[in-house]
Amino acid sequence: MRTQISLLLDRSVTRHFIMGVILFNAVILGLETSGAVMARMGGLIVALDMICLSIFVVELLAKIYAQGLRFFRDGWNLFDFVIVGISLSPVGEGLSVLRALRILRLLRVVSVVPSLRRVVEAFILALPGMASVFLLTGIIFYIGSVIATKLYGPTFPEWFGTLGASLYTLFQVMTLESWSMGIVRPVMEVHPESWLFFVPFILITAFAVMNLVVGLIVSTMQDAHVEEEHAATDVYRDDVVKRLERIEKALERR
Amino acid sequence: MRTQISLLLDRSVTRHFIMGVILFNAVILGLETSGAVMARMGGLIVALDMICLSIFVVELLAKIYAQGLRFFRDGWNLFDFVIVGISLSPVGEGLSVLRALRILRLLRVVSVVPSLRRVVEAFILALPGMASVFLLTGIIFYIGSVIATKLYGPTFPEWFGTLGASLYTLFQVMTLESWSMGIVRPVMEVHPESWLFFVPFILITAFAVMNLVVGLIVSTMQDAHVEEEHAATDVYRDDVVKRLERIEKALERR
Amino acid sequence: MRTQISLLLDRSVTRHFIMGVILFNAVILGLETSGAVMARMGGLIVALDMICLSIFVVELLAKIYAQGLRFFRDGWNLFDFVIVGISLSPVGEGLSVLRALRILRLLRVVSVVPSLRRVVEAFILALPGMASVFLLTGIIFYIGSVIATKLYGPTFPEWFGTLGASLYTLFQVMTLESWSMGIVRPVMEVHPESWLFFVPFILITAFAVMNLVVGLIVSTMQDAHVEEEHAATDVYRDDVVKRLERIEKALERR
Amino acid sequence: MRTQISLLLDRSVTRHFIMGVILFNAVILGLETSGAVMARMGGLIVALDMICLSIFVVELLAKIYAQGLRFFRDGWNLFDFVIVGISLSPVGEGLSVLRALRILRLLRVVSVVPSLRRVVEAFILALPGMASVFLLTGIIFYIGSVIATKLYGPTFPEWFGTLGASLYTLFQVMTLESWSMGIVRPVMEVHPESWLFFVPFILITAFAVMNLVVGLIVSTMQDAHVEEEHAATDVYRDDVVKRLERIEKALERR
Repeated sequence: MRTQISLLLDRSVTRHFIMGVILFNAVILGLETSGAVMARMGGLIVALDMICLSIFVVELLAKIYAQGLRFFRDGWNLFDFVIVGISLSPVGEGLSVLRALRILRLLRVVSVVPSLRRVVEAFILALPGMASVFLLTGIIFYIGSVIATKLYGPTFPEWFGTLGASLYTLFQVMTLESWSMGIVRPVMEVHPESWLFFVPFILITAFAVMNLVVGLIVSTMQDAHVEEEHAATDVYRDDVVKRLERIEKALERR
Repeated sequence: MRTQISLLLDRSVTRHFIMGVILFNAVILGLETSGAVMARMGGLIVALDMICLSIFVVELLAKIYAQGLRFFRDGWNLFDFVIVGISLSPVGEGLSVLRALRILRLLRVVSVVPSLRRVVEAFILALPGMASVFLLTGIIFYIGSVIATKLYGPTFPEWFGTLGASLYTLFQVMTLESWSMGIVRPVMEVHPESWLFFVPFILITAFAVMNLVVGLIVSTMQDAHVEEEHAATDVYRDDVVKRLERIEKALERR
Repeated sequence: MRTQISLLLDRSVTRHFIMGVILFNAVILGLETSGAVMARMGGLIVALDMICLSIFVVELLAKIYAQGLRFFRDGWNLFDFVIVGISLSPVGEGLSVLRALRILRLLRVVSVVPSLRRVVEAFILALPGMASVFLLTGIIFYIGSVIATKLYGPTFPEWFGTLGASLYTLFQVMTLESWSMGIVRPVMEVHPESWLFFVPFILITAFAVMNLVVGLIVSTMQDAHVEEEHAATDVYRDDVVKRLERIEKALERR
Repeated sequence: MRTQISLLLDRSVTRHFIMGVILFNAVILGLETSGAVMARMGGLIVALDMICLSIFVVELLAKIYAQGLRFFRDGWNLFDFVIVGISLSPVGEGLSVLRALRILRLLRVVSVVPSLRRVVEAFILALPGMASVFLLTGIIFYIGSVIATKLYGPTFPEWFGTLGASLYTLFQVMTLESWSMGIVRPVMEVHPESWLFFVPFILITAFAVMNLVVGLIVSTMQDAHVEEEHAATDVYRDDVVKRLERIEKALERR
């Protein structure tokens, strides 16, 4: 029974059907955002959404039944489980955020399509190598926020009133959005030397971001380049060394 | 007859002449944008434009006659065909968009100059490799739009009123244009926790774009690097292995 | 005695303890930014900060005692010394800047965690290779500032009134922040040809920045790629050449 | 006589002296921008500037005398010649632009310092390889400007009134500066479908810029990587093939 369900779930017909349901559900949830469509056929859309959700729940239960506890060892299964779980959590009319998050189900496409899985997996694998740069960026942001809150908090409470407000404003400054005309020029009118804080902050965070990009390029390159080429090179080199050994032995023997 | 026309079209004199007509036509259409010039010699300019167009039509018909159905198998021929076709479609005074699109004829330069063709062809060849990242970006945008429309549509109809408006606003946010001072700070005044949506959205799309760039760099590099170098390496390695084989045989023989 | 202290400082328990104090101190200084927290338990926070500082001073003195003058030869020791020194300098109530800079102590995390040290060291090592591009950028900025101050200083004193103001405004223009709507369009209303200055300035500095990024990528790549691969290649090549020499000798001998 | 002057100019003392004069002159021209400094000692500054200029003219004349017509064959000599020439051109009080351009003399540092020369030469050498991408970008900009002038010129004369205005606005849009809040949203209020023009324009030009960066990275990489490594590889491979040939001959001989 278990293996039969397992085989059924693995068949490409089933996978394509689930894929189709995901896409259809995404369209349904897209239509739900339109007031005009909801006014005319809101009932139908809600019903179709319920049907899609039921199919996901059945699929998930079948998978859990077929795989048992192994199900929870695979990251992508947990991913599907959480996404479907969000949709099942109590959705009162007031909890509009949870209702809005139902569209996250479309992310299940990623776990179904292998090429999308690979992109996400490559990203997750690249993260540890960038951990120290992330940590460093975090430290710079925390230091920057404490300094900015201390120095500019009292005069510009909206932008630097709390640690959180400063973090947000510094993130905006890092993205270079209105950093000068919107933030630093007004601040400089009260604290004329504040460019001594902001300009180095921009240069340092720009360097950190640059470092992340460079690290990602180099590591991606390494993987793609080295693996491919090295396989062939290693085969060739082993062959040459073995042949030379045989020649040496043949010469010694005589 | 057919081969004669075909040879005539391939001669460099003809190609340079067509090239000249394209550039001359571009200048004419540039002058057409100036009110002062049109007031003084509008008739002349319209006439010269008609002559240029006629030359393109004649060239295209000659090519179709010479190559027959093979004409439509080449992507660049279809490209020329569509561009000239746009200019021939019924242009009423009201259809100012179609009139404006006549300048697209300048794109024919790309199909005539080999080095420009290569740039465009390299771009088109690089696209399939980036398909999964594009698809992922598309999914993220769709999910983001549905969530933004649901959550912020009622309070900010101008930016998030419909799925389309949300898509446009999120594209603006992705390019970092006025994302904070223009969009997110006003939204945060009504929905204080909305940075929880926008900041991750920026980080995720920035990562996706970074991934596209990295992918393009790595694939371009691979092509340029590997092909060149491998040709020489393969010749050398085959040579070494063959020589070693001969030496081994020579030693065995005795 | 000296070696005992030196060993004590090197033990991982001590290192983790110092690490903990740094992080705890960072949280304390973060809490200090909150008015509500300071009103309720400001005395406690100031006291805890004093304790943390005392621990740093004791650690530093112990290190100097254990290592003697060697202490000042290591860059990271000097770094710690300056950071703790900032906190000890006379802090009147008016010197709010120095008080705000106490959070820089969190940077000591960098000197304690090896992986963060490596990121910063890699950055510092990459700097000399980029010196000429930095110098060139500096020259371009100085030339741009003198020209802008001369030409636009009298009409736009706020943006271009002094060399310093021009430098700041040109830095803003280089980051592309409001360069057109905020700066150049207003300037063009008085000096219609001023785009002849600003557009080339943007293109040239964009090129310089691009060059820095490219240089960093190439040098990082070189390091990572070449070193790793060359070690294995060199071993292999030496092996092949030695074996060939032995074969040649064996053939000559007979 | 000629060779004596030539040797004198090549001596490092002379080169350092000229270098010093260039930097001193840059400081003088920087001070000239300050109204306060000019009010107190304007006469001195103008005099010092004249002395610097005289030294440059004497150096240039000496060089031309020493090298004869060969002088004009070197790009860097022409560069110096033009820069000094700008300073000598008739400078009426009204020609403030020419007066402001005197600071371009600081660029002579580039022709004097070898490492800066190399950066600029590397840039100039990289240009031909990027010619087709530049040409393509130029074509896209021209087409975009003609279309924008035709479609949005009548309603937004300030931004799209003439071909030149459209080019400038599209350059601004390409740099993403205020493209949406500043330009496209206002335009969309009159022409609701105008995003169909601007969003593809941004994507296409972003791709072109990306292509330029990628091209530069790959070509820089190739140069640095391939040349270094190939020299060693070629020596090794030639050695291996020669040894194998000798072994084969030795075996055949017997």
